[in-house]
Amino acid sequence: MASSVGREFFTARSVAEALTDFRPSHRSAVEHVALGDAWGRVPAARILAPAPLPGFDRSSVDGYAVHAADTFGASDSIPAYLRVTGAVRMGAAAGGQVTPGSAIAVPTGGMLPAGADAVVMIEHTVEALPGTIEVVHPAAPGEGIVRGDEDAAAGEPIAPEGRPLRAQDLALLAACGVVELPVHRAPRVTIIATGDEVVAPDAEEVRPGQVRDALSVSIGALVREAGGDPQPAGIVPDDRDALEATLARLVGESDLIVICAGSSVGIRDQTAAAVAALEDAELWCHGLALKPGKPTLLASAGGIPIVGLPGNPRSALVVFRLIGMPLVRRIGGWTAVPRIGAVRARLARDLPSAAGRVDVVQIRLTGEEAEPLFGPSALLSVLTAADGYLLVAEEANGLSAGEQVDVFTYA
Amino acid sequence: MASSVGREFFTARSVAEALTDFRPSHRSAVEHVALGDAWGRVPAARILAPAPLPGFDRSSVDGYAVHAADTFGASDSIPAYLRVTGAVRMGAAAGGQVTPGSAIAVPTGGMLPAGADAVVMIEHTVEALPGTIEVVHPAAPGEGIVRGDEDAAAGEPIAPEGRPLRAQDLALLAACGVVELPVHRAPRVTIIATGDEVVAPDAEEVRPGQVRDALSVSIGALVREAGGDPQPAGIVPDDRDALEATLARLVGESDLIVICAGSSVGIRDQTAAAVAALEDAELWCHGLALKPGKPTLLASAGGIPIVGLPGNPRSALVVFRLIGMPLVRRIGGWTAVPRIGAVRARLARDLPSAAGRVDVVQIRLTGEEAEPLFGPSALLSVLTAADGYLLVAEEANGLSAGEQVDVFTYA
Repeated sequence: MASSVGREFFTARSVAEALTDFRPSHRSAVEHVALGDAWGRVPAARILAPAPLPGFDRSSVDGYAVHAADTFGASDSIPAYLRVTGAVRMGAAAGGQVTPGSAIAVPTGGMLPAGADAVVMIEHTVEALPGTIEVVHPAAPGEGIVRGDEDAAAGEPIAPEGRPLRAQDLALLAACGVVELPVHRAPRVTIIATGDEVVAPDAEEVRPGQVRDALSVSIGALVREAGGDPQPAGIVPDDRDALEATLARLVGESDLIVICAGSSVGIRDQTAAAVAALEDAELWCHGLALKPGKPTLLASAGGIPIVGLPGNPRSALVVFRLIGMPLVRRIGGWTAVPRIGAVRARLARDLPSAAGRVDVVQIRLTGEEAEPLFGPSALLSVLTAADGYLLVAEEANGLSAGEQVDVFTYA
Repeated sequence: MASSVGREFFTARSVAEALTDFRPSHRSAVEHVALGDAWGRVPAARILAPAPLPGFDRSSVDGYAVHAADTFGASDSIPAYLRVTGAVRMGAAAGGQVTPGSAIAVPTGGMLPAGADAVVMIEHTVEALPGTIEVVHPAAPGEGIVRGDEDAAAGEPIAPEGRPLRAQDLALLAACGVVELPVHRAPRVTIIATGDEVVAPDAEEVRPGQVRDALSVSIGALVREAGGDPQPAGIVPDDRDALEATLARLVGESDLIVICAGSSVGIRDQTAAAVAALEDAELWCHGLALKPGKPTLLASAGGIPIVGLPGNPRSALVVFRLIGMPLVRRIGGWTAVPRIGAVRARLARDLPSAAGRVDVVQIRLTGEEAEPLFGPSALLSVLTAADGYLLVAEEANGLSAGEQVDVFTYA
């Protein structure tokens, strides 16, 4: 974001440039949350194990704690005979001592008694007489045992910063007794709808020429999907001063501002002008090599990034998924780049595309086939009919029917 | 779920059978939510458009509303001359009438004036004199126009039941003025931890032989990921009667019950016996052809499904992701089966596997390589080190290094 307002004002950028170079340094604040609320949250620091886990040597099988050496060479025909001198109870310290020639029964997860260096699975033993077992299979030293620091040593990282916590991360944190941790706050994403023609979704009367605001709630959903906290700010008329005043008022309480801008040329210019007039404003690009989504504005004011979306709701949703969601994640502390899985399918028909821009094509999946959905870009129904989308790379001149393509499915 | 307790008591099943045949008919209740809270919720009925969308013929470009016939044959050298008799204002009804030889200026999204049957893009016009334009490119009838019912006709489905609402579904619902809708309640999933050795994650003192409960919070995270509402019910000791009493008390207030069972053989049997003793109990299977995850119990009581997970936390998380999450979705009203995308990668080493069971192998992704992670199944750290997992099919005898594999990445 080192560009000056003047030079870059009408610069168009590629999608790749937007993703790699428009990298505001602003991050959401840090708060402490209970472990039960930490799923999907991004740790603001590496979390270290306060003590070794599991904390004591444990059996990993149902069986008998033994001296491994006592079992060497044991087989069905020449079993090793061991005296059973006790049993470990789950959840209790192991009493007794395993001495040569003896064994102590231990359940899976039970504590290893002193003196033992292996646990023989119950399946490898036969109860010969009361108080005596035959071991019919040798156990190597360490076999059937989880060491006291094998899951985590004290001070070892148990959750990285910069990547949202997954179920298994919570499991390891809980097992280590970490019940509260510092995470990035969900970025507050202010969403401003604009347009003289736009009325609220719950408006009782919609007069000819008016349309309901489709974007505040749907961009809000994408913000949530990216881990953010959407803050719809209502509808601002197509008026440069009104938009500038709204932006100036909200920039201080936002981690990111999204303007759902009018799609007519004049209104796009008003949006850029309103942003440019803000204190400490930088306009990074006005125009992306993306279809749909060309009239996209990327800027910042006082370090807070601002995304101006195309006025066309369908284009706005495509752009926000591609450009806005990674931005929300980054502001929310992500440093990891997620590997997004795709469904492989066979393209059902030729897809023409101009080189020099990325095309986002909506796809309906039917069995192994990927059927591209066309239709006026003003129609939301094309987007709701899709199961996912594919990207035609900037350098490609389209794709051919029958090609294997990667379809990114909608959650 | 037609099986009798006696016959099926110790039946082992395949993963495919569990996914296709263990299909409880219980569904979570239906509630009405505001559109702003509807992201990810599953409609309990198809939602129909109350009125046509956009509701009036609109321009899809910045340009001039015209009689298309007036532009036929127009070119740079022989332009068509049209008188501009007015301009449509955004958000207002279009005044005026387009008569032959005349045009009315209209912005993108503006209402089409009466008499017009096409909109010429501004890029295809030249302002000749004040009040007159030259059209230099012909427009076909209908060009540059979105019809008043083109996004949705009145009564047309705008959101299906049985599939969670995505951002674009919310956009279309908002555009149609649907601001409240019936959805399935998030299924209440009761999570019972069991084990004499298990103490709460926030226990101040953990004595030798004791471990902290890693599952209540992490299974809860998977429940949330599947759209459910986790209800941790605390820790029950390894006591058949105590477990039975807890189950009997909670079955009436649950949509699904999950028992994080002890992993030792005796305790597994106690869990099955406690479930079998419930009113109207059916035990569907006790044992899955799955590694890890063999000691899994699938049952129901009074129509409420019950999942008994392996005691090993790592196995429990694997089983719940594979078997439990689809169950939560189904109870929560999903009828669609999600297409889960995968990252394609090259297996870094041979993976031995026995035929006759599904193997779930944890994977670390490094560039294009999929590195399988091994280690004692008791270790949570194997799961936290993984970026995703792959499935070795039941009929396969392992996979070979260099094979292309599908890795399902963790959210």
